[in-house]
Amino acid sequence: MALAGGIGGARFLRGLQAAAPEADITVIGNTGDDISLFGLRVCPDLDTVMYTLGGGINEEQGWGRAGESFTVKEELLAYGVGPSWFGLGDRDFATHIVRTQMLAAGYELSAVTEALCDRWKPGVRLIPMTDDQVETHVVVDDPEHGRRAIHFQEWWVRLRAALPARSIVPVGAEEARPAPGVLKAIESADFVLLPPSNPVVSVGTILAIPGIRDAVAAKTVVGVSPIIGGAPVRGMADACLTAIGVETSARAVAEHYGPDLLDGWLVDEADAGVAVDGIAVRSRPLLMSDAGATRAIAAAAVGLARELSGGPAA
Amino acid sequence: MALAGGIGGARFLRGLQAAAPEADITVIGNTGDDISLFGLRVCPDLDTVMYTLGGGINEEQGWGRAGESFTVKEELLAYGVGPSWFGLGDRDFATHIVRTQMLAAGYELSAVTEALCDRWKPGVRLIPMTDDQVETHVVVDDPEHGRRAIHFQEWWVRLRAALPARSIVPVGAEEARPAPGVLKAIESADFVLLPPSNPVVSVGTILAIPGIRDAVAAKTVVGVSPIIGGAPVRGMADACLTAIGVETSARAVAEHYGPDLLDGWLVDEADAGVAVDGIAVRSRPLLMSDAGATRAIAAAAVGLARELSGGPAA
Repeated sequence: MALAGGIGGARFLRGLQAAAPEADITVIGNTGDDISLFGLRVCPDLDTVMYTLGGGINEEQGWGRAGESFTVKEELLAYGVGPSWFGLGDRDFATHIVRTQMLAAGYELSAVTEALCDRWKPGVRLIPMTDDQVETHVVVDDPEHGRRAIHFQEWWVRLRAALPARSIVPVGAEEARPAPGVLKAIESADFVLLPPSNPVVSVGTILAIPGIRDAVAAKTVVGVSPIIGGAPVRGMADACLTAIGVETSARAVAEHYGPDLLDGWLVDEADAGVAVDGIAVRSRPLLMSDAGATRAIAAAAVGLARELSGGPAA
Repeated sequence: MALAGGIGGARFLRGLQAAAPEADITVIGNTGDDISLFGLRVCPDLDTVMYTLGGGINEEQGWGRAGESFTVKEELLAYGVGPSWFGLGDRDFATHIVRTQMLAAGYELSAVTEALCDRWKPGVRLIPMTDDQVETHVVVDDPEHGRRAIHFQEWWVRLRAALPARSIVPVGAEEARPAPGVLKAIESADFVLLPPSNPVVSVGTILAIPGIRDAVAAKTVVGVSPIIGGAPVRGMADACLTAIGVETSARAVAEHYGPDLLDGWLVDEADAGVAVDGIAVRSRPLLMSDAGATRAIAAAAVGLARELSGGPAA
């Protein structure tokens, strides 16, 4: 069982499949950065997991489809219809068209995700955190328009997080219910892994859905630090951490998750001295530089989880 | 002013623009063969007119976009989502995405069509016959399922009209209202031309919208026969005429339109002997074989309309 965001989460999961090929893995996917574009529902994190584990990902950029073309987007821009800053390719469009059509027909996002995975066969059970609409909004001080809340994707993709976030709010999370199967999957899991996904807008959003954090906290939980030596491994997690008043360090992120949630924490060798009360911290190389390195990191997380839950170490 | 279906209508209109470059042309477009595919609203006849006059048409096939690719369609089929028999290309998809998004936002089809034409600048005012939903259905005796009504596109494109039509019904036409501007445009026109479009499912459907036939009949109306020597110039108009009990001949089509509607009728030289009570019939070559021939046909139609309305012959 793992909670996953986008690129980092998906790559970790591929390592986990290699490290534990017999395991029955359920992935709870973040939907807080979902967005409606051109009347179509886009679920970037679910798709990144699906494409990565299903063999359809653009390996270089880590998101979107391999062999992608951008004819539809160019044509939309020729009609004056944007946004231009969100890179939807032709292959990707098909996914969003199928999803939108199924949602309009009354299927819940969890059922739609299952149907899409029928094609991709990611080898894990992928469930969105909720079938309800949750949208992560970011409050910024816009030089032109003053303080206002914008969609996470606008902040992250269009502004590249250059405008400091005053706060980050998963709008709708408080009223959202875990998607069917989420709580049961957590309860029946041997342990829960937190990949090196963004602790605020990926893992944090999943944990914000009422019921999920408590269910996870009741299990043995091992996380992999997304911060190495005071900087995010990739992405701009530091901008998110700063917004919620958490220092960009492996220690601070573990303290932010807290010992009530986290049992074990893998940090990089650069952070070998880190200690957090109530959490078993282990250090090892954490750069997911290739398939072998990623597999070894996942194996270490599984090993620590088994050790902490009293099972045999891997 | 012209009432137009798809390919034949669009090509005639291009000839009309060449023949009367100073004319202020309004085109009432057929929407009876519109269809919702993949949750997107597709308007084949409006788009064929828009692309043809706007320079975006695939000249060889007469419909769809030039330089088209089919990535989205292939991806949809990879998800098991069809139909496979309707050829939507990537460039074309963008048009339907914009249209669907605007319709969902509450714009009427006539406003959407105007917005799409902002890009294409077809040089005519293109108005859908109605903003209400009218769908031409075809009743067939299906060898497997017995007698049933199917969407016109399924009969025309998937079955290639091979299954005889028992009847052809523009579902919703009786309750439909002409789109804003349609009746006024007809009333203020010098004359109305009927291009060699399908007399049943193109021109016939437009005339089936309450109010349009009467408004057209009050004007000088000249039609161009889509039938030459007992056969359709292109397409399968004979299958439609047979379904409504009309012989496939230039004379029978003129009689079907009737002298209350039609003042002049252009037939091909092959039908030079044709005479219809109350309608001025003229014969000339009617094959739209190239731009020059098409322009000459349109000029002849304009000339006859001016002659019959008492104006100077072109």
